[in-house]
Amino acid sequence: MNKRIAEIIQKIGPINFKLMEKAQDKLDNLTKPQGSLGRLEDFANRVVGISGTLSPTVKRKVIFVMAGDHGVAEEGVSAYPQEVTFQMVDNFIQGGAAINVLANHIGAKIIVVDMGVAKDFPPEKGIVIKKIAYGTKNITKGPAMNKVEAEKAIIAGIKVFEDELSRKGIDIIGLGEMGIANTTSSSAIVACLTKSKVEEVTGRGTGINQKQIKNKIEVIKRALEINKPNPQDGFDVLSKIGGFEIGGLVGCILAAAAHRVPVVIDGFISVASALIAVTIAPQAANYIFSSHNSVEKGHKIALDYLGKIPMFDLNMRLGEGTGAALGISFIEAGVKILNQMATFADAGVENKSS
Amino acid sequence: MNKRIAEIIQKIGPINFKLMEKAQDKLDNLTKPQGSLGRLEDFANRVVGISGTLSPTVKRKVIFVMAGDHGVAEEGVSAYPQEVTFQMVDNFIQGGAAINVLANHIGAKIIVVDMGVAKDFPPEKGIVIKKIAYGTKNITKGPAMNKVEAEKAIIAGIKVFEDELSRKGIDIIGLGEMGIANTTSSSAIVACLTKSKVEEVTGRGTGINQKQIKNKIEVIKRALEINKPNPQDGFDVLSKIGGFEIGGLVGCILAAAAHRVPVVIDGFISVASALIAVTIAPQAANYIFSSHNSVEKGHKIALDYLGKIPMFDLNMRLGEGTGAALGISFIEAGVKILNQMATFADAGVENKSS
Repeated sequence: MNKRIAEIIQKIGPINFKLMEKAQDKLDNLTKPQGSLGRLEDFANRVVGISGTLSPTVKRKVIFVMAGDHGVAEEGVSAYPQEVTFQMVDNFIQGGAAINVLANHIGAKIIVVDMGVAKDFPPEKGIVIKKIAYGTKNITKGPAMNKVEAEKAIIAGIKVFEDELSRKGIDIIGLGEMGIANTTSSSAIVACLTKSKVEEVTGRGTGINQKQIKNKIEVIKRALEINKPNPQDGFDVLSKIGGFEIGGLVGCILAAAAHRVPVVIDGFISVASALIAVTIAPQAANYIFSSHNSVEKGHKIALDYLGKIPMFDLNMRLGEGTGAALGISFIEAGVKILNQMATFADAGVENKSS
Repeated sequence: MNKRIAEIIQKIGPINFKLMEKAQDKLDNLTKPQGSLGRLEDFANRVVGISGTLSPTVKRKVIFVMAGDHGVAEEGVSAYPQEVTFQMVDNFIQGGAAINVLANHIGAKIIVVDMGVAKDFPPEKGIVIKKIAYGTKNITKGPAMNKVEAEKAIIAGIKVFEDELSRKGIDIIGLGEMGIANTTSSSAIVACLTKSKVEEVTGRGTGINQKQIKNKIEVIKRALEINKPNPQDGFDVLSKIGGFEIGGLVGCILAAAAHRVPVVIDGFISVASALIAVTIAPQAANYIFSSHNSVEKGHKIALDYLGKIPMFDLNMRLGEGTGAALGISFIEAGVKILNQMATFADAGVENKSS
């Protein structure tokens, strides 16, 4: 394994369960019936365990939006042409996309990364360039990328995270992505790693019809057949049926876990990335929050496999980090409860247990 | 019926479905696959229909926290003594409660109203005094209040809403409440109006044990038996088994609907209030959003009856408007999507349908 990646994995420790007990005591003394804020309390508690502080902050919120093209797009698996990856990333840079609006709504910063878009962006355009190649290769004909490229993608994700961490600091991250045909790659990953049937984890993506879904399922089956990814080896899965943006997200997850920063996953592509990340480093699972349950078939199967319960289900299926943004806001709400509410003693309110 | 209330009901019109079609066209031209933001788009669309403008704003957010005591508290139906109503309202005023934290999180203003707390607050303490009486009467022995008091409570809710509307303006409201024993009253209301068995709609409230629940169910059955509220008559239900804070919330709902302002309900007490409001004025239902599905047994039954699908379920059961606050933030997110995203044409992104 690449030394840089091995170092990061080595650094991922257990979360602080002892401190979480203290946080629970603190939560139980706030002016509300015990446990009455339900999962909001759990979110706060978990952030305590992750960050290792009893009074964590969720101020510096960053959503990494990783973009890459997929050679398999030529198999007609998406409702949109490949050019839309570039066009939508340009839209992110201009501030006109859904993720811009929702990141702004929750006060998060977006960092857009070109991990492997098929076209070049003009330099210094508000985008980080970590282009591994001009799109992956068509996975129905062989591996998406070679092993070195897969490692490079992960390292790029680590680097982007650490650059922002050292420059501005990060309290929490959300994962977002853009890449025409990347639900095809993600379905292949989820089928492989959760040992599910391709039919069970293949959905309509951007909105293809029944006939196109049939084709998409055939394409994924061929990709799995020809590549035979090893479900015990996350690098093998990433290189054979993954994507550059997926590799970048894997890097972000590993780096966040290593630096004790909570990670909020979004839709189907980010949950596929999370599956790869925990295959590589199982202890990273403790640092991951799921946000929504997406419409994309297979999302729930992947979440179940990760042992994550989604926070909400609004029938969303856009990606970009849109669900993660709303999820971050819930976690921030929970942490503010922990930090800002008065205790029974402070407020002079009678506690039933007293 | 009281003239003031009749006027408000008269004023509640249909929502603007024609404009909602235009809003859908607008949403469908934004840079995302059609419908891919799911219910966020529905929220925006509904706010258009309610407000009657294609570019609504969700800036001036107000959560009305209505407080009142309940005579039935003496039957041992709560885990907390009656004094806690006063103490928690004082906590709201001091800014130490969960609703203070969450309202602040979403940028909402709280208006705390004493509708009928058993003790007096010092004057000018950041609370609106609309006290109808020092708590309701014990509903196991007769009606909670008389008809005039019920109307007074509703009118107070209307007045509090309209005062804020004329002074500062209101874009959206959330409903919150505080009142020891008010889940008992709410269970009675929900049982009566949805024609459900008392056992099906009676939960643990602030956290009582199995034996106490049995007692609570008996208490509610006695209250229904002795009062025989008429489920066709919302005023009758409110006066016989309701509460002053519940009447205030009914007034807020009717006033908001009359002034074309969206209403976000919270937990079990606010959904009981909504049931009364739509019994009085069925057309008010179009102005109501549900936020969360609370732990309180019967909440889902009441939502189903109203035809509302909750936005999320975080196992919350606190009340105060805490769930409504998070729900308002989702609606605001949806409206920002409608207002702020670029169209395919603006952004130069290819649309599959073009």
